[in-house]
Amino acid sequence: MQLPAIAPLDASLRPTLQAAIDAKTKPLGALGRLEDLALQIGLITGSGTPELKRPAVIVFAGDHGVADAGVSAYPAEVTAQMVLNFLAGGAAINVFSRLHGLALEVVDAGVRAPLPSAPGLVNCRIAAGTRNFAVERAMSAEQVQAALTAGMARVLRHAQQGSNVIGFGEMGIANTSSAACLVSRLTDTPIEDCIGRGTGLDDAGLARKRAVLAQALALHADAVAPLDALAAFGGFEIAMMTGAFLAAAASRMVILVDGFIASAALLVAQRLAPEVLEYCVFSHCSHEHGHRRLLDHFGAEPLLALDLRLGEGTGAALAYPLVASAAAFLREMATFGAAGVSTASS
Amino acid sequence: MQLPAIAPLDASLRPTLQAAIDAKTKPLGALGRLEDLALQIGLITGSGTPELKRPAVIVFAGDHGVADAGVSAYPAEVTAQMVLNFLAGGAAINVFSRLHGLALEVVDAGVRAPLPSAPGLVNCRIAAGTRNFAVERAMSAEQVQAALTAGMARVLRHAQQGSNVIGFGEMGIANTSSAACLVSRLTDTPIEDCIGRGTGLDDAGLARKRAVLAQALALHADAVAPLDALAAFGGFEIAMMTGAFLAAAASRMVILVDGFIASAALLVAQRLAPEVLEYCVFSHCSHEHGHRRLLDHFGAEPLLALDLRLGEGTGAALAYPLVASAAAFLREMATFGAAGVSTASS
Repeated sequence: MQLPAIAPLDASLRPTLQAAIDAKTKPLGALGRLEDLALQIGLITGSGTPELKRPAVIVFAGDHGVADAGVSAYPAEVTAQMVLNFLAGGAAINVFSRLHGLALEVVDAGVRAPLPSAPGLVNCRIAAGTRNFAVERAMSAEQVQAALTAGMARVLRHAQQGSNVIGFGEMGIANTSSAACLVSRLTDTPIEDCIGRGTGLDDAGLARKRAVLAQALALHADAVAPLDALAAFGGFEIAMMTGAFLAAAASRMVILVDGFIASAALLVAQRLAPEVLEYCVFSHCSHEHGHRRLLDHFGAEPLLALDLRLGEGTGAALAYPLVASAAAFLREMATFGAAGVSTASS
Repeated sequence: MQLPAIAPLDASLRPTLQAAIDAKTKPLGALGRLEDLALQIGLITGSGTPELKRPAVIVFAGDHGVADAGVSAYPAEVTAQMVLNFLAGGAAINVFSRLHGLALEVVDAGVRAPLPSAPGLVNCRIAAGTRNFAVERAMSAEQVQAALTAGMARVLRHAQQGSNVIGFGEMGIANTSSAACLVSRLTDTPIEDCIGRGTGLDDAGLARKRAVLAQALALHADAVAPLDALAAFGGFEIAMMTGAFLAAAASRMVILVDGFIASAALLVAQRLAPEVLEYCVFSHCSHEHGHRRLLDHFGAEPLLALDLRLGEGTGAALAYPLVASAAAFLREMATFGAAGVSTASS
């Protein structure tokens, strides 16, 4: 399988963009982290007057065989139920997408229960859920390839429709277990430091989760290469997000990175093509243990820290107005010269 | 002068609102700090389906006599120049207000240079700048009263136009000096811990600012009561913001608190009517030294930490989409029951 080519950002634009930011009617650096963000958006779009167009969020949904090992507070049926909630417009990601003007697409990456065909639902089902990675690899190598390809294809459709900024969310009961194993394996971090309560485990549940995942990591000790680790522990929705990250960077899009699960998918993408990170804006630091560690691994300082732990792309959608604000000040603010404002005396 | 009566929030609504938040299709607490915010908005608006209406920002501009003591990196003329920039739509607050749908009003609270009458400018000039508080009180008691009254009147006009969410910004060269002295005096904090580089002082400038302010605090050792401290150190724009905070809380509006200067104005308001804080959403922690200390004094944990240090109400405008998101999820998200989603098993 051919991965898309990702161009590193053109650093030669940096001085021009920095000068444009510094000429705006505000003290040097007074917009803080929004200034770094504006510079990054300028580099990605190759423009000193960047326009963010047709912002979009794709939510990938998939089930995990490991849910049968009792690693989640919620039954696996909830994945399908929540997809129906997305289609009815009642979930948090629906509310935030509507409010902030993001086009929302829901992808069935491989939910266990059959889903009705519906106008808002894209069918990319790889299988009716992954296999239980506590006993065997979650996915075959062919399934991994199919999922990567499907994720890339969805992003390319949005690029064709004019989107140049995109975020990815997920729904999949037990997928914090998947993400935790990927992070543990690919960053060589003890599993204890990668797991948390997911969406609400109690102490006994957390102990069970830890035991199941430690055993699974031992079982799949040979799954060291990125795509092997993805096959062993991943979910269909995670693999599609990995493909989506790669395609979005190859399409020179501004990428909104959601929480722990999305970041785990990005970790696989980064191992395949390190340049992908240059296109990423980290939206928030989730409450989920392990996310902070992963952010440190990326050298990322996310925009928001609101103790979110919902997924669905909600962090990406909530951060979008800040990203739009950064692009807007670079595009629209007056310069000292044009506005006739005196500069600092020192 | 009669201060407006501020009703404490009705705590009896709390259990109903919390139950509504918990019934939404998300794990308990998964929207983190947005859930606390939704609860506060529900209490302020008295509604489990809160609508934020006609969001507004008022920017109060005023000059400071103490600018002549060399406490700012920018010349005093910049206050008037920036007001003209606001009127032309080229400042950061213009960009963010446009982008996020906030009605923007600019008030001349007492700028040194005469300003042209313009459709977007409200004339509430108390005088052509305050007096230099390094040598005398900045304002007379009558000027303080006039400024408080003007600030209250502006807010009431917005309330009459249907706004139930409002933020206040400021423009005034040298007003971090004013704010630092108010915070030092009213919270009994050494001046060293209240000052910073403002919009860009170098080391020598910072040392000069520290010396000037320490001397001014000694000169006005008798200015201990809130309105005396406001008269001694305040600016017209700060006093108008103090009045604006009181009127907004009395009108049961959701209040977006901007950065260090706005928080200093709120400190005076809190000393006059502690209930005002119940209506306040703290938008961001600014880069300005002293702001963190003041936030701790309020027991506040702001929504954003982006190292902003611009003022103008930019932090309030940038936080508004999060506030709107909190109201929207409470108003629009489906419940587990209505959406047919299973709840946690434990």
